[in-house]
Amino acid sequence: MLTILHGNLLHAPAFGTLETIPHGYLVLEDGVIRGLFPVLPEACAGCPVTDYGESLIMPSFADLHLHAPQYVMMGMGMDLPLLEWLDAYTFRTEARFEDTAYARRVYRQLASDLIASGTTRVSMFSSRHTDATLVLMEELERAGVTGYVGKVNMDRHAGPSQEETAESVAETLRWLESCRFQLVKPILTPRFTPSCSNELMAALGKLAAERDLPVQSHLSENTGEIAWVKELHPDCPQYWESYAKYGLWKDRTLMAHCVYSDEREQRAMAEAGVWAVHCAASNLNLCSGTASVRELLDRGVQVALGSDVAGGDQLDMSRAVVMAIRASKIKQMETGAPFLTVPEAYYLGSTAGHLYFGGGAGFQPGHKLHAIVVDDSAFPEPARELTLPERFERAVYLMERRHIKAVYSEGAERLHGNT
Amino acid sequence: MLTILHGNLLHAPAFGTLETIPHGYLVLEDGVIRGLFPVLPEACAGCPVTDYGESLIMPSFADLHLHAPQYVMMGMGMDLPLLEWLDAYTFRTEARFEDTAYARRVYRQLASDLIASGTTRVSMFSSRHTDATLVLMEELERAGVTGYVGKVNMDRHAGPSQEETAESVAETLRWLESCRFQLVKPILTPRFTPSCSNELMAALGKLAAERDLPVQSHLSENTGEIAWVKELHPDCPQYWESYAKYGLWKDRTLMAHCVYSDEREQRAMAEAGVWAVHCAASNLNLCSGTASVRELLDRGVQVALGSDVAGGDQLDMSRAVVMAIRASKIKQMETGAPFLTVPEAYYLGSTAGHLYFGGGAGFQPGHKLHAIVVDDSAFPEPARELTLPERFERAVYLMERRHIKAVYSEGAERLHGNT
Repeated sequence: MLTILHGNLLHAPAFGTLETIPHGYLVLEDGVIRGLFPVLPEACAGCPVTDYGESLIMPSFADLHLHAPQYVMMGMGMDLPLLEWLDAYTFRTEARFEDTAYARRVYRQLASDLIASGTTRVSMFSSRHTDATLVLMEELERAGVTGYVGKVNMDRHAGPSQEETAESVAETLRWLESCRFQLVKPILTPRFTPSCSNELMAALGKLAAERDLPVQSHLSENTGEIAWVKELHPDCPQYWESYAKYGLWKDRTLMAHCVYSDEREQRAMAEAGVWAVHCAASNLNLCSGTASVRELLDRGVQVALGSDVAGGDQLDMSRAVVMAIRASKIKQMETGAPFLTVPEAYYLGSTAGHLYFGGGAGFQPGHKLHAIVVDDSAFPEPARELTLPERFERAVYLMERRHIKAVYSEGAERLHGNT
Repeated sequence: MLTILHGNLLHAPAFGTLETIPHGYLVLEDGVIRGLFPVLPEACAGCPVTDYGESLIMPSFADLHLHAPQYVMMGMGMDLPLLEWLDAYTFRTEARFEDTAYARRVYRQLASDLIASGTTRVSMFSSRHTDATLVLMEELERAGVTGYVGKVNMDRHAGPSQEETAESVAETLRWLESCRFQLVKPILTPRFTPSCSNELMAALGKLAAERDLPVQSHLSENTGEIAWVKELHPDCPQYWESYAKYGLWKDRTLMAHCVYSDEREQRAMAEAGVWAVHCAASNLNLCSGTASVRELLDRGVQVALGSDVAGGDQLDMSRAVVMAIRASKIKQMETGAPFLTVPEAYYLGSTAGHLYFGGGAGFQPGHKLHAIVVDDSAFPEPARELTLPERFERAVYLMERRHIKAVYSEGAERLHGNT
């Protein structure tokens, strides 16, 4: 069954490339993209058309790093130093997710908030709680958010919600057994090196290999953390090697931040196929620094973006794209490395993330549709007619959820209208 | 006639001070604040109460630097270097405001957009057009936005919309004669030193003195501009002296940016009573740099915030407050100067701006009410009960206009509900 979306089509199939088809036709078969056309193909005559008029149809966003339980503390504690922030807010907040009824209410709102803001793929940290993690996966699946969720493992230096080592492993197995979702899959999630004993790291590495599971964690976010890891693992010349030692540094491992990754660490990422997840707002909010995204890319590291809620204070990935641009401008002023253009940053916040999950490069035929429809008619009346690339740029900077009129995830419309 | 607002009262009467009255009463007489009370005073029994329940009632925002005609180009051209951006977008866009019908449509939307986002006081650049400037003032007045608007003066290096010197002076006089508004007053606005001939600067300085008019312009935004001013005014050791030479550097002169103002320039500001308007988003978007706000404050310079639309890409001053915090964190990482806390940055984006216009310090009795009412009930359900300062911080970070339920300007409710 063919269906057709009609509107201004825009996508970024490659880094730095923006392709546009004015008043084009996006042809779908059971939610799978069959082609993009400037004129409706004859074979499609008579097929149902959803006409979005002058609106912009563009690939949705992918958020490759956020902490689901911290959703309830967005925008709080931002005046505190990192360790006080962790104690006063993070660990206490996460402990609350022992209560699955609370988790249900919060995660239902989070899932619908993600869809409302145009994010359809995520890689997410849950808390340590197996049951709340399953609730989170269920709620994402119900709302149409796809991707990975990880029950967090942490058996040391992790506040009131810390686990015993054996319990952490046993609960991880129980969680994996219980994961039976179509769109949301498990990812192993050692919180970060300081909060996982060697025994736990080894157990998770073994599990990753045996069951071919992906891994996510944090890397080189700030200098204090790096010094701490060095102290805990004196045999590891660099932070990343504390993951590599236990088999957690492998193809498609997601590492959030990488603010202080130097050339050697970056080359180790490129070589192993480890991805860097850049979280610009969080890195500024917590005074961590500014990651060298251009350098990572130049050295062949795959980079995607994350909101890092709640180190990041906003869930909307359009804001994460804009903050990535701003952070790259800070970096340019420091080092001269060229800043990220709007199409480049949008690629990182959209296409790159979709590719991580095996999705298409932009609106690539053969892949299920992940898209947002942006109505830019309420933006101020321009001084002259705008080109589509100009409208795209403006939409990235100005879009709020009231401008997002429809969201498609995995080929299905998951949101119709927005407020 | 007394009227009463009931809700959680929060304000920042001094820099770094946040005062809260949970479930308090704000008593007004004809729009003028008479007092803030934790319990309703007996004298108020029987007076009409507007009950905002659990919502936060806090002073509105003041935007002390933005370019009204650039409202239509927000979020565009941000990948271009400053001079190309000026040529491709700014000057051409401003030229369009020759058309007063277009100006009417745009400025009506701008005025309502300001109110919807909680900004009730502004100091604004118009374009060079006298008639469009009067339209702008009329539309602001109609919507309830108060403050200053300046017809821009520019008789050199200013693209297609440049004026002749004599015409610039004559039109300024015609504009001043035509300004008959209650809430919106004129401010002299030489665009910046490079776009004003010495003759024009002298004429404006004379007018400022004769009619006791305030002045606004740009200062030390980027290094290229500073070198250019040096070339144009070889007799001036520093940029600011090109204004001082013509009587434009005086009490309450507003100078946008001040990114590269060193100790000598900062001291000259403090001494003359010149205000710095910090525009963090714009300074990052245009790769200008990051102003030393803490240093300016420590040296006794008065500082307020500006959205700097359209070097800034967002009109909402809550975003400008958050960007000022982030910029101060960048600065801290560079120089160690302590970052701006949320109450401090909010003071700059609210109280400081109101004080500039002679308003009160927070909800100060004797001053007309400028306030927003923020309904934070749609924010994620917190893990524990939040204190009012926590709710304040979260509101600053998360508020979008859908959360702003009412806006009061100059004692009157100008917005009721929002989308």
